[in-house]
Amino acid sequence: MTASVHVGRSWWGWGRIEAAVTAGEREALLSRVRALLPTAELTLHEAPEPSDLDVPKPAVALPSSLAKLASTDVVDRLAHARGKAYRDVVRNLQGDIGRVPDAVVRPTSEQDIVDVLDWASSADVAVIPYGGGSSVVGGVEPRFDDHAGVVTLDLERLNHLLEVDPVSRAGLIEAGVYGPHLEEQLRSSGLTLRHFPQSFEFSTLGGWLATHSAGHYATLFTHIDDLCESLRVVSPSGMSESRRLPASGAGPSPDRLILGSEGALGVISRAWMRLQLRPRWRGQITAHFADFNAAVQATRMIAQSGLYPSNCRLLDAAEAMLNAGVRTGASVLALAFESADHPVTAWLDRGLEIIKIHGGTVPSPAIGSDTTEDTSVSGADSAAAWRSAFIRMPYQRDALAQHGMIVETLETVTTWDSFDALHEELVVTAQRVMQTVTGFGLITCRFTHVYPDGPAPYYGVYAPGRWDSLPQQWDEIKRALSDVLSKHRANITHHHAVGRDHRPWYDQQRPDSFAAALAAVKRTLDPAGILNPGVLIDPMQFP
Amino acid sequence: MTASVHVGRSWWGWGRIEAAVTAGEREALLSRVRALLPTAELTLHEAPEPSDLDVPKPAVALPSSLAKLASTDVVDRLAHARGKAYRDVVRNLQGDIGRVPDAVVRPTSEQDIVDVLDWASSADVAVIPYGGGSSVVGGVEPRFDDHAGVVTLDLERLNHLLEVDPVSRAGLIEAGVYGPHLEEQLRSSGLTLRHFPQSFEFSTLGGWLATHSAGHYATLFTHIDDLCESLRVVSPSGMSESRRLPASGAGPSPDRLILGSEGALGVISRAWMRLQLRPRWRGQITAHFADFNAAVQATRMIAQSGLYPSNCRLLDAAEAMLNAGVRTGASVLALAFESADHPVTAWLDRGLEIIKIHGGTVPSPAIGSDTTEDTSVSGADSAAAWRSAFIRMPYQRDALAQHGMIVETLETVTTWDSFDALHEELVVTAQRVMQTVTGFGLITCRFTHVYPDGPAPYYGVYAPGRWDSLPQQWDEIKRALSDVLSKHRANITHHHAVGRDHRPWYDQQRPDSFAAALAAVKRTLDPAGILNPGVLIDPMQFP
Repeated sequence: MTASVHVGRSWWGWGRIEAAVTAGEREALLSRVRALLPTAELTLHEAPEPSDLDVPKPAVALPSSLAKLASTDVVDRLAHARGKAYRDVVRNLQGDIGRVPDAVVRPTSEQDIVDVLDWASSADVAVIPYGGGSSVVGGVEPRFDDHAGVVTLDLERLNHLLEVDPVSRAGLIEAGVYGPHLEEQLRSSGLTLRHFPQSFEFSTLGGWLATHSAGHYATLFTHIDDLCESLRVVSPSGMSESRRLPASGAGPSPDRLILGSEGALGVISRAWMRLQLRPRWRGQITAHFADFNAAVQATRMIAQSGLYPSNCRLLDAAEAMLNAGVRTGASVLALAFESADHPVTAWLDRGLEIIKIHGGTVPSPAIGSDTTEDTSVSGADSAAAWRSAFIRMPYQRDALAQHGMIVETLETVTTWDSFDALHEELVVTAQRVMQTVTGFGLITCRFTHVYPDGPAPYYGVYAPGRWDSLPQQWDEIKRALSDVLSKHRANITHHHAVGRDHRPWYDQQRPDSFAAALAAVKRTLDPAGILNPGVLIDPMQFP
Repeated sequence: MTASVHVGRSWWGWGRIEAAVTAGEREALLSRVRALLPTAELTLHEAPEPSDLDVPKPAVALPSSLAKLASTDVVDRLAHARGKAYRDVVRNLQGDIGRVPDAVVRPTSEQDIVDVLDWASSADVAVIPYGGGSSVVGGVEPRFDDHAGVVTLDLERLNHLLEVDPVSRAGLIEAGVYGPHLEEQLRSSGLTLRHFPQSFEFSTLGGWLATHSAGHYATLFTHIDDLCESLRVVSPSGMSESRRLPASGAGPSPDRLILGSEGALGVISRAWMRLQLRPRWRGQITAHFADFNAAVQATRMIAQSGLYPSNCRLLDAAEAMLNAGVRTGASVLALAFESADHPVTAWLDRGLEIIKIHGGTVPSPAIGSDTTEDTSVSGADSAAAWRSAFIRMPYQRDALAQHGMIVETLETVTTWDSFDALHEELVVTAQRVMQTVTGFGLITCRFTHVYPDGPAPYYGVYAPGRWDSLPQQWDEIKRALSDVLSKHRANITHHHAVGRDHRPWYDQQRPDSFAAALAAVKRTLDPAGILNPGVLIDPMQFP
C-alpha cells in the first residue's frame, strides 16, 4: 500500500510543508504589506506542535473488520479536522482545534464504503466524506456536538482511471483521485479533463463533484457539473448508478441532485467524465482599461458574444496592482481562446474589436498564436507564470496569517443588471466594516467566470488584524458582506459551496419547498442522519 | 376575456382545423405512399363527431368560487383528454376516448392555481397541468382509475411577458404563453428566446420547462433547461421561487428538480428565461455523403470541435429521400452557424474542412453569408422552406393515420462509442417486427441534436397498418425498439419526456436510490398525490 498523500502535507495550513514560503518570499511579502498598511503589527506566530495540543483520545473505535482502514494518528486526525479557509488556518495557528475526528478511514473499495456506512448508521457515528480537504466553507469540519463519534472518510485510495472511451471522449474515474494524478493517468490517451481549480494539486474529482467546483474555463463549461456524464454514489440506503448519457429528457436529473450535495446524501465513488483533446491552438490578449465600468461593459459584451473564451478574467485596479503588478490604476482584462481543432484567430480578432469598442488598450497582442504544445500548466510561458503565482497565493495567505493579517476571499454570482449596485454596496460596506473592526483595509475585485446573464465577482479582503481576535474579526467582515449579497439576491457562492460557514445565507436563498424536498431526500438516502451533519440541510427542521 | 386558444383547434389531431392537409396535399401524400408500399390499403377514416361519442357527464364539479374558471364543454374536455402522439390520434379517430377530464380549468392568476390545488387535494381530484397539450408520451392523459375526479389545468391565460432585463438579456415570462405569442411580445425588445421545437406553435413555455423540450439549436444549449434562470412553482404544499442566478455553487439545483418533472411535483407558473439578440449573421452548408458511417464521423468531429453550430442535422439516406427529396442514396448533413455578434465565416470554413476530410461533398456552399435579418421562421429562404415542411409533418401524419398508415417517431440519445451497435440493432429489430406485425415497413434515421460525447438519433417508422389494430400494432413496434434502447443503455427519450408511455423503460434506467428520493419529494410537495398521477413515479412503490 502506498503512503497517504497527507504525508508531507501541512496539518494546519495549505499544501506541502516544503512548499511553504521561503524566508526571502516572506520578507518580500511583509515589505509590500508595510508599504500598503503602515500600521500593521506583523508579529510572527509559529504553528503549535501537535503534541502540545490537547487532542482527545478517539471516542469510538471501528469494528475489527474495518480497523485496518482506520488511522488514529493525532496529526492525521488534526489534518482532517477542518478545511483550508482563512478562519481554519488561523484557529489552527492559535491552537484552537475544536472537535477532531475519532479516526480517518481510508476505504480501498466501494464495498469498504458500504461497510463503513452500515457500521456508522448502526453505531450513531457521523461520517464526513473527504476528498482533498481544501474546503473553504467548513465543509469537512465536525462542527456539531451530537453523534457518539465522528470519522472522516478519506477517499484517497480510490484514485484510478478505470476506463477511457476515446470515441466519445470520456473516462470512468474513481472519485478519490487528485488533479495531477488524474491528468498523469490520462496523459497516454491524449485526453484531459482540463479542470484546473486553484486547489487543483490538493483536491479530488469527488470533492469537485460534491461542491460544484469551478475550474479552468472562464465561460461556457465552468463548473465540473457540465463535465459529468454519470455518477456512482454509495448512500446508507444503497448504491446508485446513473446511465452514461450526453443529455436527457427523462425526468429530473438524478446526477443534479448529487452534484453539490457536499457529502450529505451519499459518497460519490466514481464518475464517467467528459474529456477532451489537449489544446493545440491558443491565443491571448491582456487589455488595460482606464475605467472599470468600461471594462465591465467590454467583459459583458464578450460574455454575450457567443465566442466562449477559455479565459476572460477581469481584474479591478486594486487587484491588478496587488496580483499582477500593474501600477497605472488600470483595470486589466485577460482574454484567451484555445482549441484542439482549429486556429483561434477569428475568435481573438473579434475579442480585440470588442475591447477596443470599449476603450481598452492592448500593449502587445499575440493574435492567433499557433502553438503545438499545451503549456497551460507547464510553466513555460507568461500565462503559466501567472498561474504559478496564482497557485502560490494560498501559501502566501498562510504566511500573512501567521503575522496577524486578515487575508481572505469571497465570491458570488449575480445578473449583469444587478452588478453595479451590488459591487458598490459591497465595497462601501467592506471599507466601513474594516474601518470599524481593524481600522483599515483593502478590498479588490476580479471576475473569475462570466456568463451571458451575469458575472461571478471574486473579492479579496486585506486588513491588519488583532491576533487574538482574527477569526471573530474576519467573521464580522464576512457576515456584513454576506448580508449585502443576500440583500441584492446575489448567490452566497459561485464555487466555494455552502458547507457550514455559508448556511445562514444559503438557507435564506433556498426556496422553502426545495428545502422540504431536500430534507425528505436526506431522510430517504441517509435515514440515520450520519452523513456530514450540518451541511446543506437539517432534516429535523422539516419534519 | 379572450377566447381560448383551443377555438379552431382539432380535438382529435394536430393543430388548427383549417391548417389540415388539403385534398391535393392528401392525394400527393398517398401517391408517394403507394409508390413505396404498394400493398397499403389506404381507406379513408373520418374522425367521429364528438356528439356521437359517449362522453360521460362530469363526475365532480368545482366549488362555486372556482366554477368561473372551469369549462365542461364536451369538445373542450375531449381536446384535453390526451396529447398528440400517433396512438392518441388513432384512438381518437377510432372513437376510443378513454377517461376524459371532468372539467378544463383555466386559472387567471397564481392564486387561482393555489385555490384549485387546495380544493383538489381535499376532494381527491387529480389535476393534470397542461400547456399546449402536444405531449407524445401520454403526459396529459388521465390514464388512471383512482381519484374521485380529474381536471385539466390549462395555463393558457397566464401568457404575459412580465418584465424584460435587456442588460442581462433575460425575461420574466408566464408559463402558459405559446411560442409565437411569446416571440411577438419580445419583438419590440430586440430579444428572442430562440427556442423552436417542432411543436412551437402549439406548445407553451411551461410545457417546455416541464418536459425538457429541445429546440432550435442542434448543439450546446439544446434543451430549454439551459435557458432557464429561475422558476416559480405552485405545489400543493406551497409556493417556491428560486433566485435569478447565472450559475450556482450552492447545493443541488432547486430548478433541476422541477425541470422535467412533468407536472408531478408542481405547476410552473412563471420563469426568468435567458434571451438573446436576434442573429444578424448566418451561414449554412448542405453536404452529401455517399457513406452514412463517414457522415457520422464528420458529425462527431464537428460535435467535438468546439464550433457549436446552430444546426447540425444528419439525415440518413432514407430520411433524406423521404423528407428532403434526395434520391441519390446519399446521407445529408445540414450545417449552419449564426451569430448576433460577428460574421461566422471562420466557423463555417472549418465546418466545411471537416466535411471534406470525411468525403462529404457540398453542391453549393453559401459560405459566410452575411444577412441582416433573422429569417429562421419567416419562410423567406430555403432553410425556412424546410422548416415549413417540418412544421407540416404532424398534419401529414394525421392524414396518413386516417388512411390506416403507421407513421410515428422515436428518439434517444447515446454515447458515440455505442451508436453503431445500437443503430444496427434498432434498424434490424424494426424491420423484423414490422415484417411480423404489418408485413413491411421503413425506418429512417436523423440526428436532431449532437453533443461532444454522443448523438441524439431520431427514428421515423412508416408501415401499412390494420385499421382496427393500429394502436396495438404501433405499441408492439415501439415496445421492441424501446427494449433495444434499454439493452444498449441508451436513453428512453432525448426530448419527448417520459409521460405514461415511456414509464416501463424510464423505471429501468432511473437509479433505484433516485427513485426513492423522487418518491419522497413527491410525497412532500404533493401529499395527496393529486398531481398528474402515473407520470414519472408512483410514490406508493417507495414507502
